Amino acid sequence: MRGAVLHAPGDVRVEERQDPKPIRPTDAVVRTVATCVCGSDLWSYRGANPLDGPTPIGHEYVGVVEEVGGEVSRIRPGQFVVGSFFASDNTCPNCRHGFQTNCVNREPMGSVGCQAQYIRVPLADGTLVATPEQPDERHVAGLLACSDVMGTGWYAAVAAGVTPGSTAVVVGDGAVGQCAVIAAKELGAERIVIMSRHADRQELARSFGATHVFPERGEEGVARVMELTGGIGADAVMECVGTDESTRQALRSARAGATVGFVGVPHGVTVEGTDLFRLHVGLRGGPAPVRRFLPDLVERVLSDRIDPGRVFDLTLPLEETPAAYRAMDERRAIKTLLLP
Amino acid sequence: MRGAVLHAPGDVRVEERQDPKPIRPTDAVVRTVATCVCGSDLWSYRGANPLDGPTPIGHEYVGVVEEVGGEVSRIRPGQFVVGSFFASDNTCPNCRHGFQTNCVNREPMGSVGCQAQYIRVPLADGTLVATPEQPDERHVAGLLACSDVMGTGWYAAVAAGVTPGSTAVVVGDGAVGQCAVIAAKELGAERIVIMSRHADRQELARSFGATHVFPERGEEGVARVMELTGGIGADAVMECVGTDESTRQALRSARAGATVGFVGVPHGVTVEGTDLFRLHVGLRGGPAPVRRFLPDLVERVLSDRIDPGRVFDLTLPLEETPAAYRAMDERRAIKTLLLP
Repeated sequence: MRGAVLHAPGDVRVEERQDPKPIRPTDAVVRTVATCVCGSDLWSYRGANPLDGPTPIGHEYVGVVEEVGGEVSRIRPGQFVVGSFFASDNTCPNCRHGFQTNCVNREPMGSVGCQAQYIRVPLADGTLVATPEQPDERHVAGLLACSDVMGTGWYAAVAAGVTPGSTAVVVGDGAVGQCAVIAAKELGAERIVIMSRHADRQELARSFGATHVFPERGEEGVARVMELTGGIGADAVMECVGTDESTRQALRSARAGATVGFVGVPHGVTVEGTDLFRLHVGLRGGPAPVRRFLPDLVERVLSDRIDPGRVFDLTLPLEETPAAYRAMDERRAIKTLLLP
Repeated sequence: MRGAVLHAPGDVRVEERQDPKPIRPTDAVVRTVATCVCGSDLWSYRGANPLDGPTPIGHEYVGVVEEVGGEVSRIRPGQFVVGSFFASDNTCPNCRHGFQTNCVNREPMGSVGCQAQYIRVPLADGTLVATPEQPDERHVAGLLACSDVMGTGWYAAVAAGVTPGSTAVVVGDGAVGQCAVIAAKELGAERIVIMSRHADRQELARSFGATHVFPERGEEGVARVMELTGGIGADAVMECVGTDESTRQALRSARAGATVGFVGVPHGVTVEGTDLFRLHVGLRGGPAPVRRFLPDLVERVLSDRIDPGRVFDLTLPLEETPAAYRAMDERRAIKTLLLP
């Protein structure tokens, strides 16, 4: 089969890879219907993470089950499925608490390499969520978004404690930030602020439900939120970037007692205890337990309640994966969908 | 009147201070029935906070209202009252959200100096909670504990999200840690671990409801909690110390998805974003909004449901305040009650 392999920073290639087979009896093999490039793939692509030789890449996928191992009972060949970026058994104590990304048996799908024609999915019964029937073509992008960015944006809103009538702030206007806007709206926020300085992303966020767009950053961004909230701060803040500056901005935009839900993978973020104490703002984040939300999100997509597939503003054939990375690296695309 | 004044690190004196009067029409003056020394007073006593000349000290009190300003309507002379360490109007947005310690009009009672015979209480209507009648002598210490340590321990448990049936860990065996044990029990925790290496404090914690006592610290302490929880971690962790080491221990003792409620005033605490992200543990803390819990806590004390007054293991006359500080500084006492 054909699949993407990262050879070195900036050097991703589509090449022949071995056709996957179930290795363990709990594995399934999925024929990829759609996959995509994640903002977090860019960290590797840009050389921020150590690379030990050529490595398959990609962790988002929807597809049709081709084959299952002997111990797979819930998932059947022929089903259309969505999975998250960690395989999880969905039965361990962490899974039962709703934190499947901390499953004691978790396996990162990134190391499987999902930007490929076929994908071996470990712990298939726990990991995969099947749609009731084969979805319409128009729902495929939305279902794919649920695999990571929509689930991650949803977790940001849940972690931040968005409630009906609240004022929610989203720091970050990438695909996750956009999905956080969708989530905040679904959870009933009355005012949804997105911090964004790019016209196309501002427009997209407004179409998803953002009521206020503030282009300012840092202390100026905080000042805008304070002005909007009468000096008190927002009820819920979603940090969807992962830098020290964005985290600082998020913390200072929240009111006393509010929580910053942070889902941007932190790079160089340090928080002072005295700051948190004085601000009285909670912090909750981590790799989003997307599996917890998948059944609900899939249903929302299929019923046309949400349309997170619109975060994909570029679609390319799998063979053009290198161009997909370049487009995102150069910020010409928010998120690129790949068709095998 | 007589009142304590901190002159220099290690030099606290009881001397003549001016009798307080209402300065603003929202003030009340309270005749102190009992006051005490707080662990956080020791930071100043030990020179950890800058001192700009002789300063009245103390922020915990119960007493009888002597006089009220012209705009005080809810509180009346003759009432027995409890207040918290911040005066708050109880009507601003932060107060309405239950974070009275971030009241936009808050005033620290420490700057009033509550280790004294009389206390001027700003924003009396918002700050003070009156008992239905004059309390029995035996309830005075418990009500005084509600003024800070019991309210703070309660907030630690609420912030950490202690729920019925949960496993809760308390890091810190001082007065606040002891009260966190009481709170965890009241909130239904099934297993309550206190990290303590002092026999008398272990004993007290057991009497308050601790089911497990672990004397180990740091990684060894974490290992004990992991052993108890099958390698998963505790459902709720209360950090009642405020050092970098204790915070690290608290974070590592929590399971994925759990929250560390931190109420120890942080000194030199730094948290790495990647750590929080990887552990998937939430952090929530700050100066406890004791006022939120006061009516409930007062009721629990008066109905003999809880007896936090037992954290006081030394009682001295106000004139012996210097000895009270020494006893706590040298860890001969957990907490010292002062009688004017």
